[in-house]
Amino acid sequence: MSILVVGSVAFDDVTSPSGRVKNILGGAATYFSLAASYFTNVRIVAVVGEDFGAEHENVFHKHGIDTRGIERAQGKTFRWGGSYTDNLNEAKTTFTDLNVFEAFHPQIPREYEDTEFLFLANIQPTLQANVRRKMHGVRLTGCDTMNYWINRTPKELAETLKLVDVLLINDTEAKMLAGETNLSRAAHKVLAMGPQALVIKHGEYGATIFFREGAFGAGHRPFRAPALPIEEVKDPTGAGDSFAGGFMGYLASQKEVNRDVLKRALFYGGVMGSFAVERFGTERLQSLTREEIDARFQVFRELTHLE
Amino acid sequence: MSILVVGSVAFDDVTSPSGRVKNILGGAATYFSLAASYFTNVRIVAVVGEDFGAEHENVFHKHGIDTRGIERAQGKTFRWGGSYTDNLNEAKTTFTDLNVFEAFHPQIPREYEDTEFLFLANIQPTLQANVRRKMHGVRLTGCDTMNYWINRTPKELAETLKLVDVLLINDTEAKMLAGETNLSRAAHKVLAMGPQALVIKHGEYGATIFFREGAFGAGHRPFRAPALPIEEVKDPTGAGDSFAGGFMGYLASQKEVNRDVLKRALFYGGVMGSFAVERFGTERLQSLTREEIDARFQVFRELTHLE
Repeated sequence: MSILVVGSVAFDDVTSPSGRVKNILGGAATYFSLAASYFTNVRIVAVVGEDFGAEHENVFHKHGIDTRGIERAQGKTFRWGGSYTDNLNEAKTTFTDLNVFEAFHPQIPREYEDTEFLFLANIQPTLQANVRRKMHGVRLTGCDTMNYWINRTPKELAETLKLVDVLLINDTEAKMLAGETNLSRAAHKVLAMGPQALVIKHGEYGATIFFREGAFGAGHRPFRAPALPIEEVKDPTGAGDSFAGGFMGYLASQKEVNRDVLKRALFYGGVMGSFAVERFGTERLQSLTREEIDARFQVFRELTHLE
Repeated sequence: MSILVVGSVAFDDVTSPSGRVKNILGGAATYFSLAASYFTNVRIVAVVGEDFGAEHENVFHKHGIDTRGIERAQGKTFRWGGSYTDNLNEAKTTFTDLNVFEAFHPQIPREYEDTEFLFLANIQPTLQANVRRKMHGVRLTGCDTMNYWINRTPKELAETLKLVDVLLINDTEAKMLAGETNLSRAAHKVLAMGPQALVIKHGEYGATIFFREGAFGAGHRPFRAPALPIEEVKDPTGAGDSFAGGFMGYLASQKEVNRDVLKRALFYGGVMGSFAVERFGTERLQSLTREEIDARFQVFRELTHLE
């Protein structure tokens, strides 16, 4: 199987208690595609500027990621700067230069149209919906969003949510989207907006998947994957996108998407997120092996496993 | 086996988004002893005033809790008022009338001195240490504390920590005690202060137990028990004490305290905490059955269990 991700490729400046880096390759689609590449074939649709060179494209090619969907536009690539203080859960954005990303209108190469799994990373909801409508062969669509779109474009987002199978967001976003402070009730309200399943990411505490009644087989109970207590979090940037890459990548590698597969995917999501934060930028995601990934999957599994 | 808890008995006024109650039986030792009573024999040392009547004592007696250690003093029982807004994780204290609790000097009845398990609920650390020193037959001591003592009496607390086996605190307290924002590193610093194991409670996300190298058998990895996403949290008061009651009560019911038993205890802690918050005060803890407790234990287990 293969998966298509549509989203941002960026250059980031990041400051954290562990240090500072400048101009490193980042962006949601970058983190996602690297994480997913350990599980399945990945295709990417994004836009970059004239400062995106062969050395950057090689990062994708080394992982077998199909970059024919990366559009080159005149100008500079999207740039983001963020800093983390002791509370590593929250980035303080120091600058956002949208550059070529401002006019991003995702173009799907004809060769991509048969892709079976689709991930709509965090972009304007109408663009997400347009992409979804063009992909006639898609079996399962995952989607991310953020506070900005929940507040600014609620109607457009509501339309997009009707078209997606799995929404992946964090606690704050879920509560904001539902207008509800109890997480469990918020989850049910979000599911009523369209998705078959909702993954709520809890940062260092793992993630929970909530199901629509009857979706993906019997049973209505939520399922949780814990996360490993990590000694050193160097750079939390991209943790959520790496989670999504592990989650969706694992789904795309399986013959069938049922509840057991979704549960394992939730663990793989946590695994990839936990690797991502160990180094700045995508450094750790670039150097993994499938053996390391499966070893950490076992550690996560044992973390809550009773004999 | 039996367990002794030393701590507060109180009357509480609580306001939450689900309603308001006045003058209900509360206090750390009350929540703890009710939760633990489903697993083992419980003895309590506390102080109450003249307003503590037979109807209150009966709550303990119905659960077989030995109240010979409840001292009656002239004056009123400790009273606490708190309110919760949408963020149910944090109580805003509206009043604290220490009353007879202000001069509490725990007296251990001679008949209690052979108790094998001891829980030092949240009281002044020197009082905790004095109790521990009097209990010569104790096999395992659990201990709670809070920000107030961490900030005001760090030296006294350091002495107490050398005398306890398992410390049970929440994320904020662990980070404050260690002077460290990374939870995993904070845990190791706290373990270096004395306890063999440290339970860090994450509220709705469950709890993690960290072990000293070599303590309670082989292996150094932490273990986590998840918590159930709860639809309605009526009153979070006493959740932590109920957690401790389930955790310590289960330990006291087992022949041996090893890592597997500690892991199961962590799940039982989460189970009792989750029941406590479903109703105001101790209402839910008063009406449980062991069958309901074990059914929820299974739900918690399945919450993160992969086939």
